Parts: sequence; C-alpha cells; structure tokens
Amino acid sequence: MRVIDTIAEMQQQADQWRRDGVRIGFVPTMGFFHEGHLALMRHAGTLADKVVISIFVNPTQFGPNEDFESYPRDMDRDLAMARGVGVDVVFAPSVEEMYPEGFQTYVTVEEVTRPLCGASRPGHFRGVATVVAKLFHIVKPHVAVFGEKDYQQLLTIRRMVRDLAMDVQVVGHPIVREEDGLAMSSRNTYLCEEERREALLLSRSLEEAQRLVGKGERNGEAILAHVRRVLGAGPRVRIDYAELRDAETLGTVETLSRPALLALAAYVGKARLIDNTVLKP
Amino acid sequence: MRVIDTIAEMQQQADQWRRDGVRIGFVPTMGFFHEGHLALMRHAGTLADKVVISIFVNPTQFGPNEDFESYPRDMDRDLAMARGVGVDVVFAPSVEEMYPEGFQTYVTVEEVTRPLCGASRPGHFRGVATVVAKLFHIVKPHVAVFGEKDYQQLLTIRRMVRDLAMDVQVVGHPIVREEDGLAMSSRNTYLCEEERREALLLSRSLEEAQRLVGKGERNGEAILAHVRRVLGAGPRVRIDYAELRDAETLGTVETLSRPALLALAAYVGKARLIDNTVLKP
Repeated sequence: MRVIDTIAEMQQQADQWRRDGVRIGFVPTMGFFHEGHLALMRHAGTLADKVVISIFVNPTQFGPNEDFESYPRDMDRDLAMARGVGVDVVFAPSVEEMYPEGFQTYVTVEEVTRPLCGASRPGHFRGVATVVAKLFHIVKPHVAVFGEKDYQQLLTIRRMVRDLAMDVQVVGHPIVREEDGLAMSSRNTYLCEEERREALLLSRSLEEAQRLVGKGERNGEAILAHVRRVLGAGPRVRIDYAELRDAETLGTVETLSRPALLALAAYVGKARLIDNTVLKP
Repeated sequence: MRVIDTIAEMQQQADQWRRDGVRIGFVPTMGFFHEGHLALMRHAGTLADKVVISIFVNPTQFGPNEDFESYPRDMDRDLAMARGVGVDVVFAPSVEEMYPEGFQTYVTVEEVTRPLCGASRPGHFRGVATVVAKLFHIVKPHVAVFGEKDYQQLLTIRRMVRDLAMDVQVVGHPIVREEDGLAMSSRNTYLCEEERREALLLSRSLEEAQRLVGKGERNGEAILAHVRRVLGAGPRVRIDYAELRDAETLGTVETLSRPALLALAAYVGKARLIDNTVLKP
C-alpha cells in the first residue's frame, strides 16, 4: 500500500493506471475509521481494479464553532486498517497542499443543500462539494463510493457530478450499524456511557417510523410526532431536525405517496449525530 | 472534422484518445469566428496532437439585460472556418444538453472576479467558470488556449484550475487586432460605420498609455486620466470602466511599480467592447 501526500504524485499514479486500462475506485474519508469506512473500501474493491482512499479532515466543511480541531484523528491506526482491507493507495494531503495561499474557488450545489444539514450547517456542503470535486480531479476515479448515512451529501455529490458532467460513477452504500442499531460514526467516540445508551434512540425512532408506515400510516406529521416522542425519552438528546423529505429532490413531503427520506440530526451531549431511513409507502 | 453534440460521445472520444496516448488541445468558444479564434485554434494545434473546439453560446454568463438572444451565430460558417485551420472535433451541444432540468451546481471564483467585468456583469464569471469546468470534464483536454482579450476570464480560469487541481495546462494567447488596432471581437459586428471609427479609441488609448509609461509616467491616476481623455473624444463612446490593476491578483494599483493591467470596457453604441494591455514599469 502506497501513501501519497502530494497532488502531483497522485495525479501521476492515476494517469499511469488509466493509460494501463486500470479501473480506479475511490473512497474519500476524514479518517478515524470504523467498520462503515471499511465496508465502503471493500465495496470499492468489488467495483474497480485499484482502490484509492483519501484521508483528509477538510476544514472548509466545518463551521467556525464546530469540531474541526477536536475531530478524532489516528493516522497510524487508519493506515493499518486500510492495509487490512486491501487498499492500494492512501492519499493523505496536508491542509496546505489542498488549500494553498490565495485559494478562492468553490463549488456550490443549490436546492439540494438548502434543507436539513445545509440549514443547520451553513457552508458545510459548499466545503464538501469543493473538496470532493478537487479530490476527483486528483484521484481521477472511475467509480466513487459514499455512505448513505450522509444521505444529503450523497445526493449533493450525485447532483454535482451530473451537473458538471464529471465522468465518475457515484455509488451509495447502505448505513453500517453497531449490533444494537446505532449508525457507525467517528463522532460516536465523543459519547460517554449514558449518552451512548441514549444515542440509540435515533435508530430506534427510525425503526418505529418504519413500523408505523408498515401499519399504513401515511401522514407525515403523525410519523414525525412519533419520532420526536421516541427521541424525547432521552434527556441528553436535543433534536436539531427531524424531517420527511422527497428522497430524490429533498423537497417537502406532507403525505407519504412516494419514497421519502426520514432524516434526523440530534445532539447527544456535545456530539451531533445524524441518521436516516427511506420510508416507502 | 467530426461534429459532436452529446456529452457522452465527446467523453468517449476523449477517453479513446487518452488511452492511445494522444494529447488533446482545447479552445472553448461562443462561435461567430474571427481571426482571433482561428489564431487560438492554430496555437492549440502546435501544443497538442488533436484539437477540439467547442461552440456554445452559454446563457449562464449573460445577465438578464445582456445580448444572449442577439449574440451573433453562424454555425455553417464557423464549421467551415474550423475545418480550414485543421480542427479535429467541434463540440456543439444544445443548451438542454448542457443545462438539463434541475441543474443547480455552480463554480465560483471569488477575489479575482470581483472588480472590472465582474463588477459590471454580476454572475458573469460564475457562468464562465461553471461552463468551462463542465467543458473540461467533457473534453478532457491536456491543454486549453484562451485569448488575452478576456484577461480577467483567463485569470479566473487559471485560478479555478489551480484551486480545484484540474489537470489541464492553461495557455494565454495575445490579443489579435484588426490592422488599425481594434481588438477582434464577435461583438464588433454590432458597430455601424461611425461607431467602428470611434471604437478605435479603445486601442489608441492603450497605446497612448504605453507611450506615457515609456516616457517615465508611473502615477496610475495620471495614466487613467489620459486614457479617459482619449476615449472622451468619441461622442458615441461611454466608458464602463478604465482601471489599473495588479496583473496577477487584480488588486488595486496606484503607482506602477510592477506589471499592471490597464483594462477598459466601454459601450460604443449598443456594443460593449473590452480591451487591455499590460503596462510594465
């Protein structure tokens, strides 16, 4: 496994592979791996000849009062885990390599980034779209795999790729969960024992919503009221949003007449966690 | 010469060439060719094995009260001229092909697009950066040639390419002028005989500025005052801007201590014309 930290070397490696007819799979990450990341890497391995991952905690997708500084990092552990699942190249640039002096170019995706995390985290998806566009130009992948936990991010990347005619296939991967249902996240390490217990209410509220829909409930407000009730059982849980949105456009949904995204964000202690499920009528 | 009007076919052709080790040169245009365009195409031919040009009057770089509808078009003439200088592929997509329903992604370059044409034409450079980024993803060029008449556009593209790590070499080409000095432009066709005569004041004012600098003038305001005096001799000339700016950053310049861009935009009748020169102390 090769570790590359400059843009020029990564592009050279990608060009070499492309000349040789090698198909490149890519998983962009912020590191501090859990089983969810590894699943994306393994999946990329089934879709391509070589797997490149990036490890880059991207400052431009964090707000001024968010956790960029404290975001968990462990490069040695990450490299060992990546090696363990057969990754071929880890691209791990510095912030200076990615954002040199005078940097002033941003990619913005509009409608699809407005609600949900886009509303709670101004500038977040501009940072995501910009860094992913840049990583695509550097890694030159044929296919890139993104987790569905960051559902709005996946839609944003899909939209960017289509709108700007980037020649990359974007593949989503189902949410990977702990045995008890908690969606895996690097931010779960922020949770103390009691918070960890209450964090389970997120996935449980989604299961309850699925159960309601299975029993015939189609009224969005009724579904959301139940979700909020479940989450309300945790004194350490503070809801940021709980919304039902069109699964393609993220437009508002009042009645479940086609697949809809049920998306949650909640603070559990100081950790901001997200989770989602698609409800099908 | 092949004419392609779909993104998929153009990307296929580019991939084929890249697999074969063919170097791709690219000249994006809005058509209605003059000798300036042809010079860019010939120059691209000296830098690459195959030359692709695009002909696309890009609606997103025109303001609501600008000349998108009336912008001159003549596809048959353009194709004949492109064939005449040895172009290999003309990419000529429809507006629907480039901007399908739901399009919502834009590339924005910040500081360098704020003054000059960026101030006069809000949104113009966002449209330019977005369409050029998309064209680069479609044509996959190794090298792209842009005219220096659109100096701020050239700087914007250079900045975008560097900031987003697009693996394209951006080459500028000197302004091509009519025998009497008027910078060639598709918009020169808007000029009636008298306007055409007065339009010459733009290039003449730049020559006068060069002459002043040659004689030792370093005071920006003195140079600009002279430029405005020269332009003022034309009753049909209405100055949009006449500014001295750092040739790299487009920051303000008061005294000529390093190369500075002298940039002009003026309406001559209904035609908005631009011209520029770099003044070296």
